[in-house]
Amino acid sequence: MVTTTPKAKNAFYAQSGGVTAVINASACGVIETARQHKDKIGTVYAGRNGIIGALTEDLIDTSMESDAAIAALRHTPSGAFGSCRFKLKSLEANKREYERLIEVFKAHDIGYFFYNGGGDSADTCFKVSQLSEAMGYPIQAIHVPKTVDNDLPITDCCPGFGSVAKYIAVSTLEASFDVRSMAKTSTKVFVIEVMGRHAGWIAAAGGLVEDQGIPVVILFPEVEFDQQKFLAKVDRNVKEHGFCTIVVSEGCHYPDGKFLAEQGTRDAFGHAQLGGAAPVVANMIKDALGYKFHWAVADYLQRAARHVASRTDVEQAYQLGKAAVDLAIGGSNSVMPTVDRVSDSPYQYKIGVADLKDVANVEKFMPEDFITKDGFGITEKCKRYLVPLIQGEDYPPYKNGLPEYVTLKNVAVPKKLGEFKI
Amino acid sequence: MVTTTPKAKNAFYAQSGGVTAVINASACGVIETARQHKDKIGTVYAGRNGIIGALTEDLIDTSMESDAAIAALRHTPSGAFGSCRFKLKSLEANKREYERLIEVFKAHDIGYFFYNGGGDSADTCFKVSQLSEAMGYPIQAIHVPKTVDNDLPITDCCPGFGSVAKYIAVSTLEASFDVRSMAKTSTKVFVIEVMGRHAGWIAAAGGLVEDQGIPVVILFPEVEFDQQKFLAKVDRNVKEHGFCTIVVSEGCHYPDGKFLAEQGTRDAFGHAQLGGAAPVVANMIKDALGYKFHWAVADYLQRAARHVASRTDVEQAYQLGKAAVDLAIGGSNSVMPTVDRVSDSPYQYKIGVADLKDVANVEKFMPEDFITKDGFGITEKCKRYLVPLIQGEDYPPYKNGLPEYVTLKNVAVPKKLGEFKI
Repeated sequence: MVTTTPKAKNAFYAQSGGVTAVINASACGVIETARQHKDKIGTVYAGRNGIIGALTEDLIDTSMESDAAIAALRHTPSGAFGSCRFKLKSLEANKREYERLIEVFKAHDIGYFFYNGGGDSADTCFKVSQLSEAMGYPIQAIHVPKTVDNDLPITDCCPGFGSVAKYIAVSTLEASFDVRSMAKTSTKVFVIEVMGRHAGWIAAAGGLVEDQGIPVVILFPEVEFDQQKFLAKVDRNVKEHGFCTIVVSEGCHYPDGKFLAEQGTRDAFGHAQLGGAAPVVANMIKDALGYKFHWAVADYLQRAARHVASRTDVEQAYQLGKAAVDLAIGGSNSVMPTVDRVSDSPYQYKIGVADLKDVANVEKFMPEDFITKDGFGITEKCKRYLVPLIQGEDYPPYKNGLPEYVTLKNVAVPKKLGEFKI
Repeated sequence: MVTTTPKAKNAFYAQSGGVTAVINASACGVIETARQHKDKIGTVYAGRNGIIGALTEDLIDTSMESDAAIAALRHTPSGAFGSCRFKLKSLEANKREYERLIEVFKAHDIGYFFYNGGGDSADTCFKVSQLSEAMGYPIQAIHVPKTVDNDLPITDCCPGFGSVAKYIAVSTLEASFDVRSMAKTSTKVFVIEVMGRHAGWIAAAGGLVEDQGIPVVILFPEVEFDQQKFLAKVDRNVKEHGFCTIVVSEGCHYPDGKFLAEQGTRDAFGHAQLGGAAPVVANMIKDALGYKFHWAVADYLQRAARHVASRTDVEQAYQLGKAAVDLAIGGSNSVMPTVDRVSDSPYQYKIGVADLKDVANVEKFMPEDFITKDGFGITEKCKRYLVPLIQGEDYPPYKNGLPEYVTLKNVAVPKKLGEFKI
C-alpha cells in the first residue's frame, strides 16, 4: 500500500460558472484518481463556491467524504461544492487577488490547481498557471473543460453539452409528438427556448428529431433573425405537416444585435441575462399567422437533467477529470485535457491535451456547413457530429420515485490566514 | 382458438383533450385486450383526432397495426391516433351531431364506445351512453380516465398525473440543486411554472423535494395569491438557505380571480389559455427583493415526458384500458374504471368502477388538509398520497440516443357515408 508522504502536495479543485448535469462526474474523476495516487497528491481541497473559496480561504476537505459519497458524484447533477460567476482580472489590474491565492496555496501546501469550467474559467486557470513564474510559487494549473454551450476550442466537445443535447432532443421529440396529436383542433405550433448565448450547439440538438418526421425550425444565434423568412417557413410547415416545432436559442437576435428577448439585467461577467425568446416568437406567429401555440422555456431544467444524461457525456466528464490528475502527476502545467474524435461511426475518441494559452477566451461557434442554407436547420454533417454525443443512457439510482442525488458534508478546512475582502 | 364471429360488434376508441405520457398505454390496454377477445369484440376502430373522427367518419383501422406496434404504444407518449378539443353539446342543443354518431356507429357495426379523456370528455362519454335509450341504438359507452390535472372524482388518481408529478418532482429537484450551486454569486431564486388550471395537484408534486433539504414555495390555484406574504416567505428562505425554489401553477390567481399571467386567448372549451406566470413571479421578486432569478416554463415537456414516466402510472394506464374492455364485455354501460387505493405503504390498489353520471363535470381539487396552513406547501398527508404515484421507472427503449417511440400507420377505414360538416 502506498501511503501519503509529507512531500505530496495537496490539490485545489473548484467548479466555475454555470453548472451542468455532469460537472460532478468530473469532480468524481479528479478525486477518485487523486485518491489512487496518495504518494503524489495529498488531500484534494475543494473551493466552496469556486474560486471564491480560494480567495476567502473557504476550503472543503474532500477527504472527509466517503468513497461512496464521492462515487455518487458521478450521477449527481449541479456543482457539489458550489460554483460561482467570478472572473479574476489580469495580474496587472488586480495583483492583490493573485497574491492572496498564493498565500492560501502556500498556507495549505497546495501544488495543483484543477479548475473545472468554461471559457471564462479557462482564462482564469491560464492566469493562475502563470503565477509560477510571475510570483515565484510552484503551482500546476490544469483546466477541466465544462460547458453546456460546447464552445471551447480544440476539444471535440465539452462535458455537459452531450447531456443537454440529449435532453433537448428528447424533449423536442416528446413535445412534437404531443403537438402533432393536438394539431387538428388545437395547438399547431410549439416553441421551445434553449440555452446558448452565442453558439447554437444546443439549439442544433433539436434538429435531431427531423429524422422521425418532425418539422423543426431552428433559430440559431449564428444566424440573424429574419422575421418574414421565418414566418413563411413556419407557415409552410403547418400547411404541409399540420404542425410545426420551433427551437429558439436564447441568443437569437435581430441584425442590429438586439436579442429577441432581453430582460435588461446583466450577470457578473457583464453578459446580458436572457430569457423569454419563446413567448416572443410564439406571439409573433399568433399575430401573423393566427396559429394556436404553446411554448416552453427549459432554462435550468436542461443543464441539470441528470435523469436523462448521455452516457457518452458522463464517461467523458469522468475521464477528463481523471486525465487532469494524470497530467498533473506527469508534471504538466497550463493545459487542458481534450476529447479528440477518431471516428464518427463507430464513435471513437481519445483523450488529448491542449495548451491553455490556445483555449482561453476563444469561442467555438457552429461551423457554417453545420447549418442548412436557409439558416433554419442542421446538415447531415452536423448530425454526424451530434449523434455520438447523445449516445447511451446512464440512469441515476432512484428511491421513493426520486433520483438519489448526493449532498456532500462539505466540511470546512480550518483557516490559517486572516480575512480577505473580495 | 377463438375466431371472430359475424356477431361480434366492433369497438370505437378515441383520445380526447390534452394528451399525456401514458394515454397510449391505455390505448395499448384497450387494443391488446380486445384482440384477446375476438369472439366479443371485432375490430377496434380509432377516431382520427378523437371524437371528430367519429363525426366525420374518419376511422382508423387498428387491426392494420402489428402486435409489436400496438405493444410500443405502451412506451410512446402523446395521442397516437390524434386527439381533439371538441365538446359535444347537449342532445337537445345539437341533436344533429348525435344522430350522426349513431349513423357512423351503425354503418361500421360499432357497439362499444371507449372514450379516453378527462372531465369534459367524461361528460361527452356520458351523453353517448344515453344514446341507447334516447335514439334506440344499442351502444355501450365506457370512459377511460386520463388527465394530468388529476381532477376526476371517485378514482384515487388519473393516468397521466403520476408521470407529470414525477417529471415535476425530478425537474424541481435537479434545478434546485443547480440554483443551490450558483446562489453564492449568481441566481438565488428559481421559478418553475407547471400545469394545473384549477387544481394544484401538479404543483404539489414539486413539494416532494422538501425532504431533500430544498426550500420550496408552492403557489396553488386553490390559494388566492397574496403578494406580500409570498415575498416575505421567499425572502426568509433565501436568507436562511441561500436560495429558494418556487413552483407556480399556471392557475395561480389574485383574489379577484385574475390569473398571474393570462395570454388573453381561449381554447375550444372557452377556457383561458394560460402561460407566463413564471416570468411574472420572477420579476416580482427581482423588483421587491433584488435577487437574481431564473425561470422555466415546462408546458408540454411535462405531460409528454415519457422518458421519465412513473412505472405506477404506466401500469395503471394500461390496466384501466384493459378494465374498460373487460367492463364492456361484461355488459356495462355508462361507467368508468377507477383506481381504488387500498393502502399507502406498501402501496396497494385495485381497479374499481364508477358510474359516469357521478363523474361527468365534477372537478376534484386538492383537499384542504393537503396544503400547509400558510398556503405555500404540502402536508405529510399529501406526501403520503403522492409518493406512491411517482414510484418506479419504466424507461422506453432507445436507439441512436433517442427514445424509440412508435408512429402508427393509421390506415383509414373506407367511408360508407356522405360528408358531415362539423
